[in-house]
Amino acid sequence: MTRKLKTMDGNTAAAHVAYALTDVAAIYPITPSSTMAEYIDKWASEGRLNIFGQTVRVVEMQSEGGAAGAVHGSVISGALTSTFTASQGLLLMIPTMYMIAGEQLPAVIHVSARTVASHALSIFGDHSDVMACRQTGFAMLASNSPQEAMDLSAVAHIAAIDSSMPFLHFFDGFRTSHEMQKIGVWDYDTLRKLFDDEKLARFHARANNPAHPVLRGSAQNGDIFFQAREAINSKYTDVYTATESAMDKVNKLIGTNYKPFNYYGSSNADRIIVAMGSVCETAEEVVDYLNAHGEKVGLIKVRLYRPWAASSFIATLPKTVKRIAVLDRTKEPGSVGEPLYLDVMTSVVECGVPGIWVCGGRYGLASKDVTPGQIIATFDNLKLDFPKNSFTIGITDDVTNLSLPVTKEPLTTPSDIISCKFWGLGSDGTVGANKNSIKIIGDHTDKTAQAYFQYDSRKSGGVTISHLRFGSSPIKSAYYVSKADFVACHSPSYLEKYDIVQDTKPGGVFLANCAWGAEELTSILPAAAKKYIADNDIKFYAVDAVKIAKDLGLGNRTNSILQAAFFKLSNILPIENAAEYMRQAVRDTYGRKGDDVVRMNIEAIEAGLNQLVEINVPDSWKSPAPDAKTESPATSRADAASYVSEVMTQMNAMRGDKLPVSAFIATEAGSLLPAGTAALEKRAINSEAPSWIPENCIQCNRCAYVCPHSVVR
Amino acid sequence: MTRKLKTMDGNTAAAHVAYALTDVAAIYPITPSSTMAEYIDKWASEGRLNIFGQTVRVVEMQSEGGAAGAVHGSVISGALTSTFTASQGLLLMIPTMYMIAGEQLPAVIHVSARTVASHALSIFGDHSDVMACRQTGFAMLASNSPQEAMDLSAVAHIAAIDSSMPFLHFFDGFRTSHEMQKIGVWDYDTLRKLFDDEKLARFHARANNPAHPVLRGSAQNGDIFFQAREAINSKYTDVYTATESAMDKVNKLIGTNYKPFNYYGSSNADRIIVAMGSVCETAEEVVDYLNAHGEKVGLIKVRLYRPWAASSFIATLPKTVKRIAVLDRTKEPGSVGEPLYLDVMTSVVECGVPGIWVCGGRYGLASKDVTPGQIIATFDNLKLDFPKNSFTIGITDDVTNLSLPVTKEPLTTPSDIISCKFWGLGSDGTVGANKNSIKIIGDHTDKTAQAYFQYDSRKSGGVTISHLRFGSSPIKSAYYVSKADFVACHSPSYLEKYDIVQDTKPGGVFLANCAWGAEELTSILPAAAKKYIADNDIKFYAVDAVKIAKDLGLGNRTNSILQAAFFKLSNILPIENAAEYMRQAVRDTYGRKGDDVVRMNIEAIEAGLNQLVEINVPDSWKSPAPDAKTESPATSRADAASYVSEVMTQMNAMRGDKLPVSAFIATEAGSLLPAGTAALEKRAINSEAPSWIPENCIQCNRCAYVCPHSVVR
Repeated sequence: MTRKLKTMDGNTAAAHVAYALTDVAAIYPITPSSTMAEYIDKWASEGRLNIFGQTVRVVEMQSEGGAAGAVHGSVISGALTSTFTASQGLLLMIPTMYMIAGEQLPAVIHVSARTVASHALSIFGDHSDVMACRQTGFAMLASNSPQEAMDLSAVAHIAAIDSSMPFLHFFDGFRTSHEMQKIGVWDYDTLRKLFDDEKLARFHARANNPAHPVLRGSAQNGDIFFQAREAINSKYTDVYTATESAMDKVNKLIGTNYKPFNYYGSSNADRIIVAMGSVCETAEEVVDYLNAHGEKVGLIKVRLYRPWAASSFIATLPKTVKRIAVLDRTKEPGSVGEPLYLDVMTSVVECGVPGIWVCGGRYGLASKDVTPGQIIATFDNLKLDFPKNSFTIGITDDVTNLSLPVTKEPLTTPSDIISCKFWGLGSDGTVGANKNSIKIIGDHTDKTAQAYFQYDSRKSGGVTISHLRFGSSPIKSAYYVSKADFVACHSPSYLEKYDIVQDTKPGGVFLANCAWGAEELTSILPAAAKKYIADNDIKFYAVDAVKIAKDLGLGNRTNSILQAAFFKLSNILPIENAAEYMRQAVRDTYGRKGDDVVRMNIEAIEAGLNQLVEINVPDSWKSPAPDAKTESPATSRADAASYVSEVMTQMNAMRGDKLPVSAFIATEAGSLLPAGTAALEKRAINSEAPSWIPENCIQCNRCAYVCPHSVVR
Repeated sequence: MTRKLKTMDGNTAAAHVAYALTDVAAIYPITPSSTMAEYIDKWASEGRLNIFGQTVRVVEMQSEGGAAGAVHGSVISGALTSTFTASQGLLLMIPTMYMIAGEQLPAVIHVSARTVASHALSIFGDHSDVMACRQTGFAMLASNSPQEAMDLSAVAHIAAIDSSMPFLHFFDGFRTSHEMQKIGVWDYDTLRKLFDDEKLARFHARANNPAHPVLRGSAQNGDIFFQAREAINSKYTDVYTATESAMDKVNKLIGTNYKPFNYYGSSNADRIIVAMGSVCETAEEVVDYLNAHGEKVGLIKVRLYRPWAASSFIATLPKTVKRIAVLDRTKEPGSVGEPLYLDVMTSVVECGVPGIWVCGGRYGLASKDVTPGQIIATFDNLKLDFPKNSFTIGITDDVTNLSLPVTKEPLTTPSDIISCKFWGLGSDGTVGANKNSIKIIGDHTDKTAQAYFQYDSRKSGGVTISHLRFGSSPIKSAYYVSKADFVACHSPSYLEKYDIVQDTKPGGVFLANCAWGAEELTSILPAAAKKYIADNDIKFYAVDAVKIAKDLGLGNRTNSILQAAFFKLSNILPIENAAEYMRQAVRDTYGRKGDDVVRMNIEAIEAGLNQLVEINVPDSWKSPAPDAKTESPATSRADAASYVSEVMTQMNAMRGDKLPVSAFIATEAGSLLPAGTAALEKRAINSEAPSWIPENCIQCNRCAYVCPHSVVR
């Protein structure tokens, strides 16, 4: 069966399936799961019908604790019930999850896995939340990409009803929940056919019903509780069987090969990685790369994490494996090792597989980017006589020395994939425009497409970096674009601040939103940037989107202009078609804001196409004059000085990723910050500054809140 | 140093220390931790001073979630802060616990570990709640007895301040929290000296303070979160060191030998058990017993569970060990094994100890009694060529066949220990009287003393069984008394219903509260009871406490009468002394209820001493007539029939412990009960029944709620 292809993110994919297979959704949206609940709510209000021809009843509760309670009450009454959550929200559901599992109720929780706040809160993604639920009795199913979020959501709902047990279906917050990919989409008729009516009838028959009343969730004393608790054992065999069978149904329909554990790589691998989530996509690329370079490596993708079927895991393991690295996207301080590592270690020993060395490592906490180089480092570690255990990748641990060094960072993305990178300013429309662009490319060409949007929790006003890829091969690169064919800098102020142009591949295209010509750029660009452009034959274009937008009445919304410039320069579609798709996107996006806004944006597209100029790179850039020395912001507070110079300045320069562990020791693992440092975090990102015109002043005093940093006064 | 000895339960012991070392307690009492919080509240209201000469500030919050938040806020402000909780209450604290640990704040949570509700709620004890917190970053310290709850509470508070990290100190709900033992008590001056002023000053200096403001608990993005999270690693070495050093301080003072891991048993053991909590006490008895019978076994008592120090664990392991059974008091359905098992397994492999077979088992869920026979079964399992893994003890699993059979149940309590067992009716005063008795024995003799009170969650009106032991040897028997030197049946109706007299050792004393002589008893007692009495030379006494209490105006409060009879028959103290202590206890207990109540109870003591009669056991009891067949209560509901006959009837006969796992399969692991069966649970426990006197009736209609079961009407 061929499904319709559409470009969407993981949350949309999961919500699409959840809506189909849900009667009641009890919600309390939390980042990064919010859009799942929001889509369900929106579709219900629009009257979309689920596979039973009804709209979903959506109830928003007062907290995730309430949502879990409502799920419990609803599913016990015979309604197919779902919820959507992450992080602390999921933690609040834990007490009720034990009960839902103990009472064998097939609720489904979709989780875009997110960091649990510890020394600091983080909205970003890792598995610390779902791992805090591994003991509740819920089945746990992991999806590694937006496509899998679409496919395995169906498996979760179907296997829940088939086994009459609850499922927690999870995927990586942001990396999968917010990554857009062109994916195959279930139509609801197909989902209807996957659903077993007999099992559904059994579920309804079991529901609380005044016609055949039963009592559930009683209180038990010490005489019988233990025996009753053990009476659930065989249900976990049922869950495994139901999951495998739902996967088989799906595989048969769409030609996939989902299994509780999937092996990928050399059939006679000596070293393998075991992991869950989006890192598996990256690891597949690296496995291909290393095997193409004469190594013998592989990967076990854990999909059904609970119940953990040790014998099935061992059966998936090639007989030739000698070394296993288990990657956990969580940290459990004080434990002997992280959870997946403990499970793999125990399975290997229990099943009596001799002579295998198992080690465990942590990666990707709070959405730390996981590059191919980190995966290579993991495989290289396994070559050592004594592989490092409890290691970390992606950071430099210069305190407890647990990190593995990254020694190379090859390009493992297939060579036909074009990659693009856009630096924008939160709320300038760059991310939105790129979402439109990837949909245009994904939905109007036969190309594969991927977009990921990197931004920080400051949201509006922070730096945004859009990472776009498209081509013919499937795109598994679940990490940032590092070297791009096309790089755009959407904020003029960034040109002198960040290392942006260096992201462009030699011979690639660099587009700057600025009013400057070669001469002015010579004095503005850092020496390293100029040298990189000149040495690497970068084609440098500029468009003064700030001025165009202002002239058109668009204020600071430069997105349509820059999007048009991108399509013109990247040449992915015939430019006439691209322009028409952009105009259509403008009409869809801005239609309800009125004809004027639509007209202005359409004019912006024309301007973007026409007012693009190529900068002739002067020869002098090959040996540029050295930059003037920049100084760290001064602070009068002795206690803040080292934090400001060593940590804050690096973060502001977008080099926070490179800070080593030692940078956070003095601040008690980063849980403590010197006060009064926000004032030093001047980012100078505006392309204009207000000024006070004494003649116009009526002393309303509102300048104080229009411009709280007192530039006006 | 010799400490004062006092008879108290584990909750009182922990609260005694917590009060001393606490500035602020944020509480929300929950069974079985309630009395800890209640004592703190009471002592504060009485003006008791902590070691700093202040009363503890107690704040009761709206839920455990609020209590955790208040703890967080209080400890961050530089107050030594504690809370007390269990089960779902502890689960509600989880989100905040991650933050308290991440921010390195030395709060202390005392937990009387309790079952988390799953298929059914249970108020009883196991480690499912604390195990749900093992990933939060808290240090976790286990106490195995009331004495250890006293001693290690001090270690928790001191090590928390020394390492500046939070501690979760736990002990078994009910089995330790409610078990009374005669124990050594810290005086507050000594605790003051254990407390390091320098560390305390450092804690105060770190606190949030407007004079040196800092920001804590910020939001971090993907650039730095991971590095900062790893910056905490060395704190867990600090926790280990601080715990070991606090234990050393304590050991030096009071001559104990507390270590993060304690070994007990043969120095060349081939088989050992690893466990935490009260089961270790029982296991010590069994280790002594088996080693005395030529086996070579041992036990590792895990005290510091988090951080888990693998190398320290391995160093504790005798070199001769070949087989390890790890006992977990929790069940994590769908996992490859329970948490302690995973930790031990991984430690053994990581530390490269060759040739050791590790298996894991579950025990004691919801306070299931753990007998020496079960521990012997665990050691015997290790003798098999292929020991059963993921086994259970204490139940019969006839479905998944994971249970180990108990083949013998020897008496492992030292022979000088006298044991007593009292069957009472919830609210008849039996438990209270026995608490007084054990205090009298413990505090007025040089005997060791232990009391445990078995009752169900119906509380008032249910069966209570008091298990008392006293003697010269230390009492480690953390399980029910099975064969007692003295058995009392405090409710006449029990004599024909339950197997009580069979609890008496041959030649022991049996006391019945009843108005019957030998002739009436012949027709009332079951055949098996009569035969047991006659065959085993049981000395059978009776006292009509119901009539005496009524005549004295005490209503149904028969406790003082029966307590006096116990002291007379058991002959532990000279009876004049015992009578005086009982009178003193009456004055203490009832003083505030007025002189009349005190007088009546003192008369009751006299009556109990004087009106005791010995029943001359007729020879005919050696070959009694068979009992009339009793029938299960009839139910007209087909769906309830098997539940009523197979489960409910057994539970009502106090034989629920013997029900196998298969009894709960049909009711979905016991999560579902047929409705309308409570009406069939007639227990016929009253010694009187009301009757309606038409002449007196003023048609007030209150009989409907005085007697809802409509006996009157």
